[in-house]
Amino acid sequence: MTTIKDVALRAGVTVTTVSRVLNNRGYISQETREKVYRVMKELHYQPNEIARSLTRKRSMILGTIIPSIAHPFFAELTHHIERYASDLGYKILVCNSRLEPKKEKEYIDMLKSNRVDGIFMASHTLEVDVYKRLQQPIVTFDRRIADIPYVSSDNEQGGKLAAELLLRKGCEKIALICGNLSLDLLSNRRTEAFVRELRRRSVEPVVIELGRDVFETVDYGKAVGALFDAHPDVDAIFATGDMVAMHVLKSCAQRGIGIPERVKLIGYDDIDTAALVNPGLTTIRQPLEAMAKSVVDLLDGMVAGNEVPLENVHPVTLIERETT
Amino acid sequence: MTTIKDVALRAGVTVTTVSRVLNNRGYISQETREKVYRVMKELHYQPNEIARSLTRKRSMILGTIIPSIAHPFFAELTHHIERYASDLGYKILVCNSRLEPKKEKEYIDMLKSNRVDGIFMASHTLEVDVYKRLQQPIVTFDRRIADIPYVSSDNEQGGKLAAELLLRKGCEKIALICGNLSLDLLSNRRTEAFVRELRRRSVEPVVIELGRDVFETVDYGKAVGALFDAHPDVDAIFATGDMVAMHVLKSCAQRGIGIPERVKLIGYDDIDTAALVNPGLTTIRQPLEAMAKSVVDLLDGMVAGNEVPLENVHPVTLIERETT
Repeated sequence: MTTIKDVALRAGVTVTTVSRVLNNRGYISQETREKVYRVMKELHYQPNEIARSLTRKRSMILGTIIPSIAHPFFAELTHHIERYASDLGYKILVCNSRLEPKKEKEYIDMLKSNRVDGIFMASHTLEVDVYKRLQQPIVTFDRRIADIPYVSSDNEQGGKLAAELLLRKGCEKIALICGNLSLDLLSNRRTEAFVRELRRRSVEPVVIELGRDVFETVDYGKAVGALFDAHPDVDAIFATGDMVAMHVLKSCAQRGIGIPERVKLIGYDDIDTAALVNPGLTTIRQPLEAMAKSVVDLLDGMVAGNEVPLENVHPVTLIERETT
Repeated sequence: MTTIKDVALRAGVTVTTVSRVLNNRGYISQETREKVYRVMKELHYQPNEIARSLTRKRSMILGTIIPSIAHPFFAELTHHIERYASDLGYKILVCNSRLEPKKEKEYIDMLKSNRVDGIFMASHTLEVDVYKRLQQPIVTFDRRIADIPYVSSDNEQGGKLAAELLLRKGCEKIALICGNLSLDLLSNRRTEAFVRELRRRSVEPVVIELGRDVFETVDYGKAVGALFDAHPDVDAIFATGDMVAMHVLKSCAQRGIGIPERVKLIGYDDIDTAALVNPGLTTIRQPLEAMAKSVVDLLDGMVAGNEVPLENVHPVTLIERETT
């Protein structure tokens, strides 16, 4: 295999000069630079990227820790993150962490040892203290921990928009299906804002809280069944995620409950399939592309040592389709 | 920051000994090993993983190049790959390559420079020759290139099962919506087997071939519309992917075409949402978990220098739901 020494020898320069050309550091004349590149090409020289990242102290890899890449919301978010990161020269490591604090810990260790330049953390099983102690680039999703920058949608506004729509449609017996409220997540503000808005108009919602592991979709159907058994007169449902809303659609079809005729339904996220199901799902849209860009820009800024904003809250939009 | 020298000094051993403990190489007494580990813990020593991978010539990273992680089939496949890979100590780099041969090339370069130990290649935009020249661990998906090991579902059997079901249901005017047949993909055997089986029973199918970029879902709806405009008497459709089948469902609902009453529909893949749409989608199930395990085992075997099988074809199952 061709080494940096072979290149230097053939180009008639020192190894230091070749290294400077490779790392784009120090003064190198245009002529020398071109000669080195030409020789590297002639000799099919392949720089050892690991050795280079050791010198640069950068791996150009970002780690993303998400509950599950099989979940459409995180699959679509990761898709956009990969695209923006790739534009800046980063590669993306994907980690499904759900239920395994060990994996979050492993990634933190990779960050400490410079194997990744930064971490996007959308799973939160580790103790908050682990994060507080870190000086390195971390961006969280839908969670605020000390002064770590975070990205979220405007959950407050989302919950409010959902409540206003259902009230405007004349719904009176309104249910909410949401994630576990004991987790310290900003997404719980969807629930708080929704409930507050209804109460302001003297409507008391039925609240169904899903289990801790809201990304295991198998139990969604059961929760919906239990809701209709206990409250057969429900005339509207706000599900705080589209996947849950799709399970509501399915359960209603199986029970012969007409949507939107008898029950109005609204989701949250606007994943690709929301437009594809029958009837098309009304939902609160999170601007995934903008949020992904925000994640990448924040991490890149922190890697470069820049000050970055702490709160990165993105506006949501009501997308009205056929379920309301 | 604590270095390996600090650890050696405090433990009263040489740097080489600490390095041997870290890399599990050479003879080290149990006593020394325990002492080194204890000191590393006391000093909060964090081994520099990049430096270690340079010595080991292994990064413990596998690259996966897929058309799009936002596509549910690849999201679910990647989910399982990540899980199995993680069990063996590998991390997963994800690359959305679609339409960008440049990115495939970049990953090949990473492989050559030991930044990834192996590559799972489910996107095929580069010239075949680039792969043929490689000596390193690569596993392809649904494509056979020279003697590179590949993983696929039994596409032949899948096409045959779909045809048999539709004929058994008494369908006579049968359409097929498939990917671009000019791409040299094993998945085209679904189409070949389907058409062969119908012709054997004297039924000539209508074949609708999607564009080259079949993972851009925006055009699916149009293709379905065109099919019904040209052939209003179609009574069955086999879509060679579930996402396309879901677009057929949507288009039929919009046109008031009853499924399964007027048109029977069958997909391919069995992605999670296939069970969730209304009516539930009949489909040919690819065993994603087994296929993902196969991908990881093959790459891990090749990294270890083992001989691995070239053909890794997994059986499919007909999952009959409500669309047939």
